[in-house]
Amino acid sequence: MKQYIEKNRERFLEELFSLLRIPSVSSLEEHRPDMKRCADRLVELLLEAGADTAEVYPTDGHPVVFAQKTVDPSLRTVLVYGHYDVQPVDPLELWKSDPFEPEIRDGAIYARGANDDKGQLFMHLKAFEYMVRETGLKHNVKFIFEGEEEIGSPSLAAWAREHRDLLKADIILVSDTTMISESVPSINCGMRGLSYVEVKVTGPDKDLHSGHYGGAVANPVNILCDMISSLIDKDGHITVKGFYDDVVELSDEDRAKLARAPFDLEEYKEFLGIRDVKGEKGYTTLERTGIRPCLDVNGIWGGYTGEGAKTVLPSEAHAKISMRLVPNQDSETITRLFMDHFRAIAPDCVKVDVTPCHGGNGFLIPISSDAYQAASKAMTDVYGIEPVPSRGGGSIPVLADLQRILGIDPLLMGFGLERDTIHSPNESYLLSQLFRGMEAIALFYRYY
Amino acid sequence: MKQYIEKNRERFLEELFSLLRIPSVSSLEEHRPDMKRCADRLVELLLEAGADTAEVYPTDGHPVVFAQKTVDPSLRTVLVYGHYDVQPVDPLELWKSDPFEPEIRDGAIYARGANDDKGQLFMHLKAFEYMVRETGLKHNVKFIFEGEEEIGSPSLAAWAREHRDLLKADIILVSDTTMISESVPSINCGMRGLSYVEVKVTGPDKDLHSGHYGGAVANPVNILCDMISSLIDKDGHITVKGFYDDVVELSDEDRAKLARAPFDLEEYKEFLGIRDVKGEKGYTTLERTGIRPCLDVNGIWGGYTGEGAKTVLPSEAHAKISMRLVPNQDSETITRLFMDHFRAIAPDCVKVDVTPCHGGNGFLIPISSDAYQAASKAMTDVYGIEPVPSRGGGSIPVLADLQRILGIDPLLMGFGLERDTIHSPNESYLLSQLFRGMEAIALFYRYY
Repeated sequence: MKQYIEKNRERFLEELFSLLRIPSVSSLEEHRPDMKRCADRLVELLLEAGADTAEVYPTDGHPVVFAQKTVDPSLRTVLVYGHYDVQPVDPLELWKSDPFEPEIRDGAIYARGANDDKGQLFMHLKAFEYMVRETGLKHNVKFIFEGEEEIGSPSLAAWAREHRDLLKADIILVSDTTMISESVPSINCGMRGLSYVEVKVTGPDKDLHSGHYGGAVANPVNILCDMISSLIDKDGHITVKGFYDDVVELSDEDRAKLARAPFDLEEYKEFLGIRDVKGEKGYTTLERTGIRPCLDVNGIWGGYTGEGAKTVLPSEAHAKISMRLVPNQDSETITRLFMDHFRAIAPDCVKVDVTPCHGGNGFLIPISSDAYQAASKAMTDVYGIEPVPSRGGGSIPVLADLQRILGIDPLLMGFGLERDTIHSPNESYLLSQLFRGMEAIALFYRYY
Repeated sequence: MKQYIEKNRERFLEELFSLLRIPSVSSLEEHRPDMKRCADRLVELLLEAGADTAEVYPTDGHPVVFAQKTVDPSLRTVLVYGHYDVQPVDPLELWKSDPFEPEIRDGAIYARGANDDKGQLFMHLKAFEYMVRETGLKHNVKFIFEGEEEIGSPSLAAWAREHRDLLKADIILVSDTTMISESVPSINCGMRGLSYVEVKVTGPDKDLHSGHYGGAVANPVNILCDMISSLIDKDGHITVKGFYDDVVELSDEDRAKLARAPFDLEEYKEFLGIRDVKGEKGYTTLERTGIRPCLDVNGIWGGYTGEGAKTVLPSEAHAKISMRLVPNQDSETITRLFMDHFRAIAPDCVKVDVTPCHGGNGFLIPISSDAYQAASKAMTDVYGIEPVPSRGGGSIPVLADLQRILGIDPLLMGFGLERDTIHSPNESYLLSQLFRGMEAIALFYRYY
């Protein structure tokens, strides 16, 4: 497929850019029309690439795009999953170029969604087009692209249940993750789940003068800090009651396998600009993000945050808190445990509200499966090295749902790299990874 | 003076409203022209009220207004201090009427500055006018109104040192505080000092995907919460090293005197909408705000605070933290102790910056002084009850500076009430307090 890429390179980029230029931020109401525009553009691209049918399906939230090409019902069917929604772009001032006007610098595309997941889903479109036009497709292929991955896929599970027959396939193929490095390809064989909640602590029913009341009236910001601080003990364990009940401890052998993945702690720290890492006692950095759950504050706000010094004792304090879960932990159970725990530790002097935001379960795929083996061979061909089976720290909760609803395993061939800083300013995707990803995907079909 | 008020009531209100309509928010750069407008308007009002001279003095910050009327150099001289700057108005959506378009509802003026301090300084203008026009002034009177009280009076101390001769007086008279209640008048004989800092905790040098890094990389919001939580122990003591070194413990006798002030804990809790108070172990609520120092977070922010659920491990977390100090604690010393402590408790996995914002020392005035006694008699005449000597929880750091620079005690005859919710949305000032304040001030001059 190398030659095909070379011949069509400019067209490929222009098509991808047409997707990146659409600000399809699913979490912001103002971008609702952009979501529809992006779905429509995907339909055009799918039909041009060779799909028999491609349609936009409305949902209660943002639309689902579904397309398929049937070659022969007796052949294997691959269901490609991707998402066309992106994260918000703030803080905007840290972007070196417009997040929605893609720019190529130093061999990488810079734009929101360049990697996650417009860039990665685009590789599947072009590998598909190549097979249709040049080699003859030997599989039936279906595409499902959703617009709500970044907000927890509230509509897709219901949609999938309704369209179970339409979605019948042998494997769910996904590119929405990273590999360890360009020189160490890897395949994700497991992802963490997620529980995400928003909490509000209310003290007095109005903002107060901190001089008149300070010292006598509980400050909700101080209380929120106390409560958050108490959620993780000094060994890095999460203190939510029952949190670890379903966590499976890996065997020493499994831990040894994972430890074979090359990892340079000094490089890692340098890349992040930190002097030291921090995490659960008794686990390595890779284990902390791969096989162990964790708890993070994703956002906090309360009181006066403007210029200057306002002496206010605020009425409210807020935080967004998320927990990453390992396979076997159930997201709904953990969310409930968190809510009970957080309410239980609230002192009498404040009122506490906890709202579940979104979540999903983690999952694992067997290394011995045909699909994993085909992906492994394809990546070996492209990178010249056998990929490492790895465990992803992130969450694609909807994949656990699809696995459960459709009874199909997901296979995660991700071509992102750490340097891409997805979800952050200056998200990027290396052109070399974009094109090698296309090759590897085409080869996957050859071996599967 | 009652009759004079009745006769001039409408004009008085119109004059006060003309001040309240000017959005003189000292902390926001955009309001710089409003500061000058407000100073100019005060000069007009001072001259109309009978001052010999009134002038706007530029400073490095917002201008100082100084006015005087000399009757006879051998008479006592009263220096009236006030401030014409106000706090920011956010959260604006909680205001029931425009903060800069005063409105009278249920016998109170609603506007930013209605009490703090435009309403209260205005009482001095009108008591002065009354004496000049109706009874003959038996004192020399000077007025100093600054525009930087809400941002820590960065310019006034230097200005006062330069104009020490101009400011010569026997007493500094100030209305910028509250009394216990309408039925329990009180005079502030001490105020707390202030140390206000802004802190920044930096983890990774960019925002990260919380799935990929969560559990292995220190989250600066979680760390900031840990650090803030550690600043106060479970007994409500501040843990900053050396913090209590200069705090004078009150004698049991002094504590008993303070305890005579009527105080209904249930009413207090109901007014604030809280189920319980919280503070330093071993002290009452009035002691906690009057004679004990405290530490409050005035604002906190970090990570994603918008709509929806962004799974980010943020690069930075910020907080504004202030400490109220009791007399004998030195603001600069405490700020230094805090900075040293906060840096010392920062774990290696983050970087911490602490910036001092503003501060000032607390002070005390003797109850036996002529001025206190005159104020006490004046308030007894107006309210029919002898006022309680109280200790204010708030801070007017500049008064401690003026006391030191000029060698004159400040006397705090404040007519605000808790219900006025200064610094908060819907700041108000009761008309009854506005007019009784004028009377009491005029009577003060009679007894002093």
